[in-house]
Amino acid sequence: MGGERLVGRTQDIRQTILDHALDLCSEIGLEGLSFGALAKRVGMSKSGLYAHFDTKESLQSDVLDHAAARFIDSVAAPALKKPRGLPRMRDLYSRWLAWEGDEFTGGCPFFTASSEFDDRPGQVRNSLQRHLKDMLEMVSRVAETCIEERHFVSDLDTRQFAFEFYGALLSYHQFRRLMDSARADDMAREAFESLLYRSQA
Amino acid sequence: MGGERLVGRTQDIRQTILDHALDLCSEIGLEGLSFGALAKRVGMSKSGLYAHFDTKESLQSDVLDHAAARFIDSVAAPALKKPRGLPRMRDLYSRWLAWEGDEFTGGCPFFTASSEFDDRPGQVRNSLQRHLKDMLEMVSRVAETCIEERHFVSDLDTRQFAFEFYGALLSYHQFRRLMDSARADDMAREAFESLLYRSQA
Repeated sequence: MGGERLVGRTQDIRQTILDHALDLCSEIGLEGLSFGALAKRVGMSKSGLYAHFDTKESLQSDVLDHAAARFIDSVAAPALKKPRGLPRMRDLYSRWLAWEGDEFTGGCPFFTASSEFDDRPGQVRNSLQRHLKDMLEMVSRVAETCIEERHFVSDLDTRQFAFEFYGALLSYHQFRRLMDSARADDMAREAFESLLYRSQA
Repeated sequence: MGGERLVGRTQDIRQTILDHALDLCSEIGLEGLSFGALAKRVGMSKSGLYAHFDTKESLQSDVLDHAAARFIDSVAAPALKKPRGLPRMRDLYSRWLAWEGDEFTGGCPFFTASSEFDDRPGQVRNSLQRHLKDMLEMVSRVAETCIEERHFVSDLDTRQFAFEFYGALLSYHQFRRLMDSARADDMAREAFESLLYRSQA
């Protein structure tokens, strides 16, 4: 029993460390996430951190897994509870916008990690690629429910839909977070409404 | 006269350093661009570099200016030589796709810098913001020539057009460079054709 409690506590500590690591990653990037910087943020010694993560690469990869779990909790899972078809699609987009714009002080950690790791083969890039594929396949699957509910035309290219859905979110990220555009929210909604309109029967 | 030659040579050396710095930035990010890493790449001493750039921040800002000049040479200027309206717009998009996909080994330096500096106030972020605004205003201006040539409807929202134009390019960047999608080029063209179609009279 004592062993289980200890495992439980070790898991809690790990989650707390990963929460801090995710915030740090959102602010300074996944590459800037050193054991030293993280130890300072968490208020732990570096050797304490090494008890939870072997290498910087495995820490980075674990942070991405943690971000993906949070994306599921904040965006995917609530949206999947909405009725199939358009209501689910609208909820998904709206939650994803909030994720890009407000969930993190430094913006979406996947966006940050993408530009750092898109051309660096290895464990971190593989993890990032896997999570992004999951996220975009989910968009395609929700678009399929829209077809089944006859909200979208039957021959819609759902992967093309996901490409344009994601494009609007990425552009939003840039207009909102970098260019401080007052119209970013409006433009992101307009782009989405146009995408829905084109997809509808 | 000797002074002029010296100034000329100093300018050449500076350009060569900035070319190397831009490649390095595309690969490892603007933040990773240290005087040490750059000196190694160029084959110069660090003190030699300090003769050309005062601080890391001014080096980063100069690299962005250099990237913007290259964007003008490779993308904007050739496109602006095309006939006003649709031919110019198509050329602009096509060149911009090549810029995102092929111009740099590590991908578009603005994309890389964006995720690093979107939430870090200062000289570098200001420079980045200014260049992106220039680039997106150019898209809106070319869209205006499309309206004047009656290729686009007269009441088109040209800023919304630029938002969606940029979204397709950013999504392309992710599908092509990170997700290794074989369909990235096709999807980027499809998204653009759809945008043109919607904008046409």
